[in-house]
Amino acid sequence: MKKILVIGIGAGNPEHITVQAIKALNRTQVFFILDKGYANDDLLALRRDICERYIEGRDYRLVQVSDPRRKDDSSSYRSGIEHWHEQRAVLFEQLITDELKAGQTGAFLVWGDPALYDSTMRILDQVLARGRESFGYEVIPGITSVQALAAGHRIGLNRIGEPIHITTGRELAAEQGAQISNSVVMLDAHCTFERFIDEALHIYWGAYLGTPDEMLISGPLREVSAQIRQARETARAQKGWIMDTYLLRRAVF
Amino acid sequence: MKKILVIGIGAGNPEHITVQAIKALNRTQVFFILDKGYANDDLLALRRDICERYIEGRDYRLVQVSDPRRKDDSSSYRSGIEHWHEQRAVLFEQLITDELKAGQTGAFLVWGDPALYDSTMRILDQVLARGRESFGYEVIPGITSVQALAAGHRIGLNRIGEPIHITTGRELAAEQGAQISNSVVMLDAHCTFERFIDEALHIYWGAYLGTPDEMLISGPLREVSAQIRQARETARAQKGWIMDTYLLRRAVF
Ligand SMILES: C[S@@+](CC[C@H](N)C(=O)[O-])C[C@H]1O[C@@H](n2cnc3c(N)ncnc32)[C@H](O)[C@@H]1O
Ligand SMILES: C[S@@+](CC[C@H](N)C(=O)[O-])C[C@H]1O[C@@H](n2cnc3c(N)ncnc32)[C@H](O)[C@@H]1O
Repeated sequence: MKKILVIGIGAGNPEHITVQAIKALNRTQVFFILDKGYANDDLLALRRDICERYIEGRDYRLVQVSDPRRKDDSSSYRSGIEHWHEQRAVLFEQLITDELKAGQTGAFLVWGDPALYDSTMRILDQVLARGRESFGYEVIPGITSVQALAAGHRIGLNRIGEPIHITTGRELAAEQGAQISNSVVMLDAHCTFERFIDEALHIYWGAYLGTPDEMLISGPLREVSAQIRQARETARAQKGWIMDTYLLRRAVF
Repeated sequence: MKKILVIGIGAGNPEHITVQAIKALNRTQVFFILDKGYANDDLLALRRDICERYIEGRDYRLVQVSDPRRKDDSSSYRSGIEHWHEQRAVLFEQLITDELKAGQTGAFLVWGDPALYDSTMRILDQVLARGRESFGYEVIPGITSVQALAAGHRIGLNRIGEPIHITTGRELAAEQGAQISNSVVMLDAHCTFERFIDEALHIYWGAYLGTPDEMLISGPLREVSAQIRQARETARAQKGWIMDTYLLRRAVF
């Protein structure tokens, strides 16, 4: 039986790795590294660093593969994503067939936690459903960017007794301002918060969380909105990429 | 200046601790341990274990204090909690004054992640607002029970592009079944999911997550609801306490 580990590695700070993840790294013979094919060499480097830092010995291989490019021309967002996942399932299946011998353990290193806006488990389930390869797989949780955001700002994600809402820039864009009470927003390339500057909201924003370049800005949305866009654009131009996330919170009286 | 560390220690598995948390444990001279005064000696034991396992040397003290008991007789849930937090702020202030010398570092070990349904940061902010003690504080994220639930069941918290909702048993009870699409429920002592067995929901339930006693049950809510209540009651009677959490998910077609 082949074994696959889906290992959450934290979202930028190599010290966010858990003892369980370190043990999992040390059980792995082959690491599958998906090269997203754009300017995030820094993110690839962090994965390599983690392997070098935490694995004892050199008894492992890194297999780097190009991620199938997602086409944006599809009629629906969801079907576009589904098609992309199918292509990735074929790729994953091939990797597991070609690169892993019976009895060996392979691993996917997942940014943050595998349960949060990541498709690795879904794709592995698809590979299993295709029925051509069989393997066991195990999931190792990791610290998410949402947790790094909360820790950086020293805020709770919830207020007393209240629910927590985590959403995407795309979903937020469809919301009415008045509905927003306490929302963490991820995957937002368009400063969607700007649509809500007339609402009595507070924003806690963070970029490159957990890394030496961590940026934190917070304040009344109306007052800091422009500053965030500015900081975001400057940083993105400088580094070639940005990852940011934020919490929008309405004051309660 | 005194320093306080708020350290997330994971929600049951001692190997969920991060490298950052281990370093924080080793910077700490005084650990404040709140004894909740009921039958969760196991939870206290886990905290002690973590200290013994991960701290090099014996150069630290544990200060165990009784948590002020929360009265349930107050008119509103929120004001009851607020009053309780105020009492705790007085207690925390006293601990910091009495047990910590200038320049020393104290720590609160928080179950799971300090940002998720935990009041430590809120109380420290209240202590600072009272203005009688001054200190710096830092938050170290930890793996939450929600992440342990998702990893145990090997499921994502979100579905493609969809938001994530994390709520309490109390809030869930107030919801209409039809509104529930994808909700993680915590702090539910009453099997509130039973109210929704006529809905086309799937449940992923977990108790004692991350511990050797971990229990996982999943399936169509209607089919496994009774089994979960049964398992929950038996386990709780046996151990004297239970911590469980679950995801309710509506099928999409
Ligand atoms: C595809 S999701 C993956 C999330 C990841 N699984 C996690 O647990 O954080 C990518 C989004 O996560 C957020 N993100 C990830 N790492 C981040 C970081 N270091 N700083 C800020 N945001 C980050 C951004 O919102 C980004 O668009
Ligand atoms: C006051 S909240 C604290 C949550 C914690 N800060 C975290 O990050 O998981 C306590 C609730 O968390 C959930 N919980 C905590 N530990 C758990 C475990 N090991 N297994 C199942 N549920 C757990 C239960 O729903 C419990 O009622």
